[in-house]
Amino acid sequence: LYYLTGGLSAPDPRQREALIQLEASMQTGGQMVLTDVEQLLDALLFKMKQEEIARADFPPAMHFFKARDLIRTSPIFNLLQKMPKGGALHVHDFGMVDVEWLVKNVTYRPHCYMCFTDIQSVRFIFSSRWPKALPHCSPWTLLENLRAKMVNTTDLDNSIMGNMTLFTDQDPETLYPSQDVIWDKFEQTFLALWGLVTYAPVFRDYYYQGLTQFYMDNVMYLELRALLPEIYELDGSTHDAAWTLKTYQEVTRQFTADHPDFFGARIIFTIHRGVNASVMASVVEEAMKLQRDFPDIMAGFDMVGREDRGRPLWYFRDALSLPVERGVTLPFFFHAGETDLEGSEVDQNLLDALLLNTSRIGHGFALLRHPVAKDISRKRGVALEVCPISNQVMKLVKDLRNHPAAALMSENHPVVISSDDPGMFGSSGLSYDFYEAFVGFGGIRSNLGTLKELAINSLRYSSLTPKQQEKAVVLWQRRWDTFVSENAF
Amino acid sequence: LYYLTGGLSAPDPRQREALIQLEASMQTGGQMVLTDVEQLLDALLFKMKQEEIARADFPPAMHFFKARDLIRTSPIFNLLQKMPKGGALHVHDFGMVDVEWLVKNVTYRPHCYMCFTDIQSVRFIFSSRWPKALPHCSPWTLLENLRAKMVNTTDLDNSIMGNMTLFTDQDPETLYPSQDVIWDKFEQTFLALWGLVTYAPVFRDYYYQGLTQFYMDNVMYLELRALLPEIYELDGSTHDAAWTLKTYQEVTRQFTADHPDFFGARIIFTIHRGVNASVMASVVEEAMKLQRDFPDIMAGFDMVGREDRGRPLWYFRDALSLPVERGVTLPFFFHAGETDLEGSEVDQNLLDALLLNTSRIGHGFALLRHPVAKDISRKRGVALEVCPISNQVMKLVKDLRNHPAAALMSENHPVVISSDDPGMFGSSGLSYDFYEAFVGFGGIRSNLGTLKELAINSLRYSSLTPKQQEKAVVLWQRRWDTFVSENAF
Ligand SMILES: [Zn+2]
Ligand SMILES: [Zn+2]
Repeated sequence: LYYLTGGLSAPDPRQREALIQLEASMQTGGQMVLTDVEQLLDALLFKMKQEEIARADFPPAMHFFKARDLIRTSPIFNLLQKMPKGGALHVHDFGMVDVEWLVKNVTYRPHCYMCFTDIQSVRFIFSSRWPKALPHCSPWTLLENLRAKMVNTTDLDNSIMGNMTLFTDQDPETLYPSQDVIWDKFEQTFLALWGLVTYAPVFRDYYYQGLTQFYMDNVMYLELRALLPEIYELDGSTHDAAWTLKTYQEVTRQFTADHPDFFGARIIFTIHRGVNASVMASVVEEAMKLQRDFPDIMAGFDMVGREDRGRPLWYFRDALSLPVERGVTLPFFFHAGETDLEGSEVDQNLLDALLLNTSRIGHGFALLRHPVAKDISRKRGVALEVCPISNQVMKLVKDLRNHPAAALMSENHPVVISSDDPGMFGSSGLSYDFYEAFVGFGGIRSNLGTLKELAINSLRYSSLTPKQQEKAVVLWQRRWDTFVSENAF
Repeated sequence: LYYLTGGLSAPDPRQREALIQLEASMQTGGQMVLTDVEQLLDALLFKMKQEEIARADFPPAMHFFKARDLIRTSPIFNLLQKMPKGGALHVHDFGMVDVEWLVKNVTYRPHCYMCFTDIQSVRFIFSSRWPKALPHCSPWTLLENLRAKMVNTTDLDNSIMGNMTLFTDQDPETLYPSQDVIWDKFEQTFLALWGLVTYAPVFRDYYYQGLTQFYMDNVMYLELRALLPEIYELDGSTHDAAWTLKTYQEVTRQFTADHPDFFGARIIFTIHRGVNASVMASVVEEAMKLQRDFPDIMAGFDMVGREDRGRPLWYFRDALSLPVERGVTLPFFFHAGETDLEGSEVDQNLLDALLLNTSRIGHGFALLRHPVAKDISRKRGVALEVCPISNQVMKLVKDLRNHPAAALMSENHPVVISSDDPGMFGSSGLSYDFYEAFVGFGGIRSNLGTLKELAINSLRYSSLTPKQQEKAVVLWQRRWDTFVSENAF
């Protein structure tokens, strides 16, 4: 590959140049051949990045909560928003919409009740009658009544909002001093919005709104990890998982009909990793059934919840082997390696995900510490879904220039960029995460070729069939060419 | 190397075990064969590490200034202190001794004058007459007189001490919010202690004291990066670099005579990277001369100062090529990649250090982002001198579990552990850095074999001749065996 004289002579500048070029060609996008117009845009982008890096406050080095306003003024961010980014492959059902929409739209709907929990969180329910009291919660208040008594509802709305997101104007380091604290709050936010988003009419609107926000951010395709929970109606009646999945399908179809240049969405059915082995076995059974009955919308199966506290994949190996034993297809998209507990049982999740033939890896933050798993992931083309802002907010990494994906992208390890729970983090869509990846761990060397490869990766590593992928790439390429020619001059 | 069935069948637990073993065998020390007694100690160590990781306050995840007291109570740290660690290959001349010794011993010597600078730092000088005033500094005070007027000198001594170290009881994040701030303070501390340590009698004692502190920490060999500055006498007369180097040699000999189980020390001559090309050329000339005249004590050449602000190696390529052009030996031990400015000119230092045939790399923090440089470093056996606490204090990494050496050690990349400027960081010797490496980025999997390989690395990658290395390893092995047998039960 290369040859160094090893100190027998003074270093040769041509050899140096060749090695620098070699290294550049190894990175994500390093093999992309750029058209003349793309090269123009690339030159522009390079200049913008140099200016960005010269700033005193370099956003990727800061906590996202503090960096967000700076990022919004960044010309690179502005460009990334316009850029067709392909698909978002790692997004969760109830973290896809910004919480302001939940407060300003959903909590203003009729029949919305709220109570306050012992630990100052909130719970909601929509009900045609006065709902039964919840344990550890104050008596229910009809929000309509509560707001009617107030001169100014801003404080109330802000306090509700604060309960449904991790984002804060306070110093995040002080407010969330440890992973334990932030994960507790993370789980509380889900409980807070649970009663809102699992109400059938809201459920549909929420998902439609989520698709809208990604679509507006120039994302053309989505793979949504969804719990498929029981969805309830105003009279208290409920729907099962199949109904929920079908509803996802219907809303997706509706959205695609309304926005013909949106390619679609698929669902990865998820279950909390806190369950035991026998529950897991029955959930896998259900997943196989759903996969058979809804092959178009259903992409596969995964587990959610904090890896460090949940059960490791290997604990569930019998349940997770059921599909293979039965000769049934159930693709896996496992979260794995979202941890810095190196060498723990949970740290084996990466290897075990690969042994269980996972199609992609959610996060894979710890992959660099696992050379064997890394090698398998590369050789098998198992892409990592890298979610930079999520990893920072959840306290796995502070300065995003140090994100392990910097090393992975320097050798073109298969990765896609995603946003996990943008609503929880005060971001939205995919552009903020693309910004952190491109300006932060991409470094100066990452270029338009990198962005292009990341966007294409998001379709190539999706669960779409090869034929669908071809179609999606063609659609994407058309929009990409427009984007390039509109911004290169 | 390994074969995966790729989802055609349920995962085979034997295959899993084999892959886990394979990965374990790839790490630093993974090929070490442990004796029966070593295995006993290893089992003990594993238990201790599990307990350590279960602590609520996990020291490697914290800033060292806050973690230090916790580390001191750690049984693992206690063991690491007793462990024969081999050599410390990356330590700087005026950061090797804790500053308490400087204050309590050196500033209490007669003829010691002090002044206060405009920016609340201090300067010192020893002089037989009243010294000439310094620009931007208050009139000189004789410390003896000042202290005589005080009832209690503790506050004064503490304030002097605070000027000579980065260590602080205050919140380090608040006090040092950015790399710029901490580097400025870092440079001020050197200026503060400069007048003390360059006074000939103190210079000798300081170095002897430094050797003592490393020796007491069970380090048997040292490679010291030294500026070889002008050393002055009480009458204001000064000595040149050759005198300084010879003094290092004499003190080393004295120390080895006093402590026959100490193997010795060698000097890497350093110059600040802020100089221009012509100054560098003359310094390299001087270095070649010193290398010729003092082949025993002189190990080679390096540059110091903040990489991000200094000139890149490539700027100095002509000067640094002089030895090769003349056919003269001058080994290089370049600091390189102590940066998170990926893709900048300075970020090329890693590759350029290798092109210039460096013998080792100081820090190499950015190596993971440079696959070509990483490959050359591995193939040529160019070890990285990893200084975990330094990297954390200088704000390259927050949680030491995320240090890039975690990935490098998982594939047994050539590394040694060192402490850079322990006096500046409030640590001492080598054990604190070994603790961070072993418990922090070593993870649960790193074991006694890892520690053994790290210790042996520190001799094998030293500048000692192969014959000297053999001798040093034999000496080390004897002490290691005693250590193991004394602690395994
Ligand atoms: Zn996730
Ligand atoms: Zn150094």
